[in-house]
Amino acid sequence: MPRLRSDSRQRLVDAASLLLRRQGYQATGMAQIVKVSGAPRGSVYFLFPGGKEELAVAAVRASATKFAQRIAAAAAGPDVRSFCAALVEHLAEDLTGSDYTEGCPVSTVTLDSTPGSPALAEACSQAYASWQRAIEDALVGYGVGQSRAARLAVLMLAAVEGALLLCRAKRSLSPLEEVHTEILALVEAAGAT
Amino acid sequence: MPRLRSDSRQRLVDAASLLLRRQGYQATGMAQIVKVSGAPRGSVYFLFPGGKEELAVAAVRASATKFAQRIAAAAAGPDVRSFCAALVEHLAEDLTGSDYTEGCPVSTVTLDSTPGSPALAEACSQAYASWQRAIEDALVGYGVGQSRAARLAVLMLAAVEGALLLCRAKRSLSPLEEVHTEILALVEAAGAT
Repeated sequence: MPRLRSDSRQRLVDAASLLLRRQGYQATGMAQIVKVSGAPRGSVYFLFPGGKEELAVAAVRASATKFAQRIAAAAAGPDVRSFCAALVEHLAEDLTGSDYTEGCPVSTVTLDSTPGSPALAEACSQAYASWQRAIEDALVGYGVGQSRAARLAVLMLAAVEGALLLCRAKRSLSPLEEVHTEILALVEAAGAT
Repeated sequence: MPRLRSDSRQRLVDAASLLLRRQGYQATGMAQIVKVSGAPRGSVYFLFPGGKEELAVAAVRASATKFAQRIAAAAAGPDVRSFCAALVEHLAEDLTGSDYTEGCPVSTVTLDSTPGSPALAEACSQAYASWQRAIEDALVGYGVGQSRAARLAVLMLAAVEGALLLCRAKRSLSPLEEVHTEILALVEAAGAT
């Protein structure tokens, strides 16, 4: 039984993450999450007594962890050029593989549920903070000074978030590709190698 | 009568723009738009026979025009420093004046209705394209070469869009301020004066 519970929990969180990423919090109902997850219908309010909001917070946290791990994995590359390329490649694959429905896993929720849900806003804010730290650590690893790396990490995160938004509207990778070119030049000029 | 119709139309578009900016397309219903607008309830389906989608397209276009005019007005400033400062100041006032509910007027709609509504996606995409052109024109006016200005305009637009998103999640202006510092340094390095 504990095994089954844990399976259902994971399935519900995965389904919620996918739906929140594609369509946001407002458009996503519990019935749809349960259906997509394949978890037993009865399990959801047992596992998430706080309902959709509690499940959404868990989903945002799971997406945040997954993306922070991606940034850390990209930062294992030999130079800042390979770091930026690995990040952009991943994001581009998500966009094109989903017909431009899967951009940032957190931004739609941020915009369509803030400030209505303080718990969700907090989870989204922590997600961005963790990605910003992961980018900052990577830049420091490539030789950028600490304080400059902190500010560049904010710019990189903002530019990538904005580019994902523009790519979704335009149904094209060109905003991400152009941001990639400019950001790489900028971090190299800041001393990253 | 034509005067009254035009008043009602404007009120409905203004109310829709405000609600779409704050909460997106999914969370906004026609009844709420009519209520906020103060327009006669009977006027809405007469003026917008295509319903919420048609009104939302008109609202996105109106927001797009307004923001493009803001960019052009900021570009009347004497140097690139005053241009960037004027833009950021406007956006910061909108955020703090609305308790961080009013960021980009178009991005929530982009994320929560794409690709469900091709008409809305097209209106959002045109909004971003018009802002990008307005930024590009401003940068050329401040002395940046045409092709570099085009790429920098994409980065600036993406970074500002992303910063507005981060500000909403964090309920703080710091992402916008940090992006401002880095972007200004970048455009000055690109030859803008």
